[in-house]
Amino acid sequence: MEQQKLEKLLSKMTLDEKIGQLMQFAGHFYATNNNKDPVTGPDDLQVSSKSINYSGSVLGSAGAERNKEIQERYLAQSRMKIPLLFMADVINGFRTIFPIPLGLGASWDPMLVERAQTISAKEASSAGIHVTFAPMVDLVRDPRWGRVMESPGEDSFLNQEFAKASVRGFQGENLQADGERVAACVKHFVGYGAVEGGRDYNKVDLSERELRENYLPAFQAALEAGCELVMTAFNTIDSIPASGNQKLMREILRKEFDFDGVLISDYGAVEELIPHGVAADQKEAARKAMYAGVDIEMMSLCYENSLKELIGEGKVSVDLLDEAVLRILNLKNKLGLFENPYRGASIQKQNKYLFCPEHKEVAQEAAEKSCVLLKNNDVLPLRGGKIALIGPYADNPDILGEWSIFGKKEEAVTLKAGIAKHTSDYTYALGCPMYDRQETALTEAVNVARESTHIILALGEGSDRSGEGRSRSSITLPENQLELLRELKQIGKPITVVLFNGRPLDLMEVAELADGILEAWHPGSVGGTAIANLLFGKANPSGKLTMSFPRTTGQIPVYYNAYNTGRPLPEGSTERFYSRYIDTPNEPLYPFGFGLSYADFQYESLQLSANELKPGGSIDVQVLVKNQSDYSGEEIVQLYIRDLVGEVVRPVKELKAFQKVFIPANESKLVSFSITEEMLRYHHANLEFKSDPGEFKVLVGSSSTDLLSQSFYLK
Amino acid sequence: MEQQKLEKLLSKMTLDEKIGQLMQFAGHFYATNNNKDPVTGPDDLQVSSKSINYSGSVLGSAGAERNKEIQERYLAQSRMKIPLLFMADVINGFRTIFPIPLGLGASWDPMLVERAQTISAKEASSAGIHVTFAPMVDLVRDPRWGRVMESPGEDSFLNQEFAKASVRGFQGENLQADGERVAACVKHFVGYGAVEGGRDYNKVDLSERELRENYLPAFQAALEAGCELVMTAFNTIDSIPASGNQKLMREILRKEFDFDGVLISDYGAVEELIPHGVAADQKEAARKAMYAGVDIEMMSLCYENSLKELIGEGKVSVDLLDEAVLRILNLKNKLGLFENPYRGASIQKQNKYLFCPEHKEVAQEAAEKSCVLLKNNDVLPLRGGKIALIGPYADNPDILGEWSIFGKKEEAVTLKAGIAKHTSDYTYALGCPMYDRQETALTEAVNVARESTHIILALGEGSDRSGEGRSRSSITLPENQLELLRELKQIGKPITVVLFNGRPLDLMEVAELADGILEAWHPGSVGGTAIANLLFGKANPSGKLTMSFPRTTGQIPVYYNAYNTGRPLPEGSTERFYSRYIDTPNEPLYPFGFGLSYADFQYESLQLSANELKPGGSIDVQVLVKNQSDYSGEEIVQLYIRDLVGEVVRPVKELKAFQKVFIPANESKLVSFSITEEMLRYHHANLEFKSDPGEFKVLVGSSSTDLLSQSFYLK
Repeated sequence: MEQQKLEKLLSKMTLDEKIGQLMQFAGHFYATNNNKDPVTGPDDLQVSSKSINYSGSVLGSAGAERNKEIQERYLAQSRMKIPLLFMADVINGFRTIFPIPLGLGASWDPMLVERAQTISAKEASSAGIHVTFAPMVDLVRDPRWGRVMESPGEDSFLNQEFAKASVRGFQGENLQADGERVAACVKHFVGYGAVEGGRDYNKVDLSERELRENYLPAFQAALEAGCELVMTAFNTIDSIPASGNQKLMREILRKEFDFDGVLISDYGAVEELIPHGVAADQKEAARKAMYAGVDIEMMSLCYENSLKELIGEGKVSVDLLDEAVLRILNLKNKLGLFENPYRGASIQKQNKYLFCPEHKEVAQEAAEKSCVLLKNNDVLPLRGGKIALIGPYADNPDILGEWSIFGKKEEAVTLKAGIAKHTSDYTYALGCPMYDRQETALTEAVNVARESTHIILALGEGSDRSGEGRSRSSITLPENQLELLRELKQIGKPITVVLFNGRPLDLMEVAELADGILEAWHPGSVGGTAIANLLFGKANPSGKLTMSFPRTTGQIPVYYNAYNTGRPLPEGSTERFYSRYIDTPNEPLYPFGFGLSYADFQYESLQLSANELKPGGSIDVQVLVKNQSDYSGEEIVQLYIRDLVGEVVRPVKELKAFQKVFIPANESKLVSFSITEEMLRYHHANLEFKSDPGEFKVLVGSSSTDLLSQSFYLK
Repeated sequence: MEQQKLEKLLSKMTLDEKIGQLMQFAGHFYATNNNKDPVTGPDDLQVSSKSINYSGSVLGSAGAERNKEIQERYLAQSRMKIPLLFMADVINGFRTIFPIPLGLGASWDPMLVERAQTISAKEASSAGIHVTFAPMVDLVRDPRWGRVMESPGEDSFLNQEFAKASVRGFQGENLQADGERVAACVKHFVGYGAVEGGRDYNKVDLSERELRENYLPAFQAALEAGCELVMTAFNTIDSIPASGNQKLMREILRKEFDFDGVLISDYGAVEELIPHGVAADQKEAARKAMYAGVDIEMMSLCYENSLKELIGEGKVSVDLLDEAVLRILNLKNKLGLFENPYRGASIQKQNKYLFCPEHKEVAQEAAEKSCVLLKNNDVLPLRGGKIALIGPYADNPDILGEWSIFGKKEEAVTLKAGIAKHTSDYTYALGCPMYDRQETALTEAVNVARESTHIILALGEGSDRSGEGRSRSSITLPENQLELLRELKQIGKPITVVLFNGRPLDLMEVAELADGILEAWHPGSVGGTAIANLLFGKANPSGKLTMSFPRTTGQIPVYYNAYNTGRPLPEGSTERFYSRYIDTPNEPLYPFGFGLSYADFQYESLQLSANELKPGGSIDVQVLVKNQSDYSGEEIVQLYIRDLVGEVVRPVKELKAFQKVFIPANESKLVSFSITEEMLRYHHANLEFKSDPGEFKVLVGSSSTDLLSQSFYLK
């Protein structure tokens, strides 16, 4: 539809119809069969049929048949015949489930993420979905928070790369193409990853500098990639909840970032301005959210119950309302809904796409590339012999991760199923239930282990221990599982622990007892196949952590791009007056960027084309990476920069570039990067974003703590 | 000396002499006998005799004879004959040691603190000290940080009250009076209590609102009470280290707070601008510190090595230097040093004052009032019978706390010595060393316990586990001590645990196993007497926590004046989509304001004189506190206010007033407060400090979680 026609449409709408466009309710309010959609928030909203008949969009409803039927019925009773928008959480896949985002992050492979999200878009749109609430790009430094599983990790630069790749994957070049794309909604604007104490929905307090340096750039990147929607965060920023925060939404998002797409509240977040204590009632909440520029109110009724009155009283202008409605109509138009309200929804397409072999293949590749080999005391890859496959995750399909609400556990390939493709010489034993001790299971596991040459122990936390509303005050493995590990250790056989989890865990004891550790996250539909391929050496581990693994909960937050402090601890020192804990080293157990391979990659000859960088110019950086092994493999070559002296304190290092390179066995590869002045900019005391002349260090290597370094100067 | 004369003096000084005034070195550089002063920071500075001869002040040197001799020798060689200033850390006492500040905080008794610090001033000045680096008023919410022991606690209002009381105690009405007062130096400006991860010297990131609401007010209070000096913090604020932070020091401290006293760096903090990464070298560090207005550089040489050159190059003006020097001369003049460079230093006075009976009496009172009874399963006060006195703290004089650098352990009254004053019917056994297990000691303890009617188990962390540079990633008791408790529990006798420690600990297991818990902190010189008086009912516990005790390290930070969030957890709910941990309640084990008494105080009839507050007016609040017991005792009646709706989020409650009242056994007391508009002000979105009309709640009671409540309205 032409813009002019769209505006004409708007001009014909009644106030009720306009306000209706701003409302979003869960699918079960629309459906005739009352089948509930997956619950993604509090579940006590009372919605009238009038609300449903006027509303502009639907939350969480999926299925070609269902959504078509809802659309049809809606349009039949609607005066204006403006199609409903169907939005849902398609995070790491729709039916074909990829690893959780924190796992995908560990692939350091934005192209892979783009391919995965193209698949997600194809599947979701065939099921009648138009908008996905992804990517989530919240920078995370606190593994207590259950939602770290949804984030690419602790680094702003990586988050930007993944944000762009996700948006490209969901939206493609043309949102309308074949009806097989979905609009992306970047979330949660902003700072949600910094909830105090890692407790979900809690307060966030950050300086504006911290916000601009670390939390905002991934949103900017998503918007620059064309992301159509933004979702508000649940938390406060500077003591004002995001959904009522004018500075964030009007000044920064709308004006500074020039965003004129749809801003949607998170689930119930507009009404939550009341418990937050910045609104006395729905009416004040509605006014504040409108002023902040929230276009769609998800799952609460403040706009519906109050906007008319606010407009009548002149407290909210019709112009403000019209702006919001027009943004929503624009989005519907961009998606081609006025031409075809049913768009990509198609049972035939569903049958063709959902969990089809090509999609599974990418899911398998993604899972292989997301696993991180944390320890390998020369036990992997497996070299034959009898395997004891033990543990509550050994034959457990709960590997799709918390946000895979449209995935099917029964389709998941468990580790046992994966291993069975490689060998029949294994024996399975549960060992223990997920969270409890069971003597008979333990005895059986010990017996099985005794008969084996190698123990594969699959441990972890179920998907019900991470995700939204799932913060933990302790990040250890369940105690019963540690007991199982201790008992098996007594037997004296090599133990490889495969971990399934949604957050960095305290692995101190596992690292002490296990000979090999493979971090598999919640790896998605074909996780078992991927892990088995890695264990048997059919694939070579290449993933690297994007979030530090603390030694203990009490070390949180621990992250790679910290400040040096005025009293940095000299290596190995235990003297008193330095910045340290007296009972734990400062370093995490496994740092950002860390991950082993079966190959042995050696870095040599870091060279710079010049040691002076002139504005407008660049320095070429080269490093030779040798694969000194008989295993071919991929290596993620990381480039960090340290600004030695700033007007404000600069981190000890910042990731500025990386490359994933394949290096055949016993070969070498020269890897090149380019450093430009833009990479050296930061927010100064007055928040100006620019670089300073002076000395810098470039650091290149295999992880954030294993680096070659050279100096250069910006003139 | 008259101001005019002082300025004339300044005009006669050479550049070297001026710069010298800005330098402060440790006493051992001055002393002839090379006796080291207590080390309070890194110990590797190289200082020339020229530096010593020009310097303006001395760090950490004490003793009438020693300081007089240093002063005499200094003046003899000095051209200008400007006396040295002697500064030292007199935190919770000089020779008579009071409980650590966190313990003194638990007294909720500013008058007591004032008396204690008057005694500290008397003792310290008799030993030739002119300035003390106290009070420390850093608001603390993270018990991992070792320096929480130095702070009054987690509440800004209490911190303000203690800040004023301390300054009054140290300085009195007249700094010169009898040479028995010392100038106070409030520290650490600012935000040091919020070091990330509780790791000492680490980065601090706060919004300006958070800084103004919680961290600045205690400094303002100290300055309003006339505090002569301010010390910079080690940490960054908004990514700029405090000692080079112009916004903090020039704009807020000097201009906004109108402070024209001496600003001194913390130990080595000027040179630390280099490792922080905001200065390339000493010269840049010196320039930044001068611009920030740091008058005295403690224990580094940036000013000395660079100021002359900076002035020569016009990068620092002589005016800026003169300002700093004049502030130092002013302070010396206020202290009366030009008239008498030896001031209060007097061996006779030392002999008369140090650890004299009157001082010990106040120390005992302070210790009694600082102890907090956390649990009492009807086991206290002791009612005769045979006591088994067990534990590494049962007869341990390490009870002075980390900052008592001039106190003498050998003078400390241990718990055993205290108990011996009440009964001879006790048997002592070590049980275990402080941090290790020892089978023979354990066996002996078990035998002793078996023969007893009541076990007193004295546990804790040594003073070497808290204080500066003593952050911990875990806040449990040492494992060997918990083992001891578990073993003794088997015996089935009532156990009262007396705790000696410098920070809130995770007491989950202790609370489960012990019948009584008395938190005694590090209680100072006569701690044992005080604790025994409490155990035997000669004194009645009245202390209340000023810092929350978390259930687990992973719950940090947990504090009473938190935000409600948009999804506050309904009481008892375990549903998913609320702000909570899935493995721990949100509430701390022991909340702010909590502490038991042998008396049974009941609150009734909370009444307000009106439910409308008009600007300029006030509301009287009355509550009846009944002592329904046969024990007379003191109760700390607490008044909190909640602002239900703000322009920005307001805490769920804020302490606004308290009264400590003595209520005889079986009597009642009507306690009155007054609420005024000033108490309702907060920093708005634009940081304006004002109140809003609307509904408020007043909550009055015995702790931050045991409260009666009423509403009122501000018109």
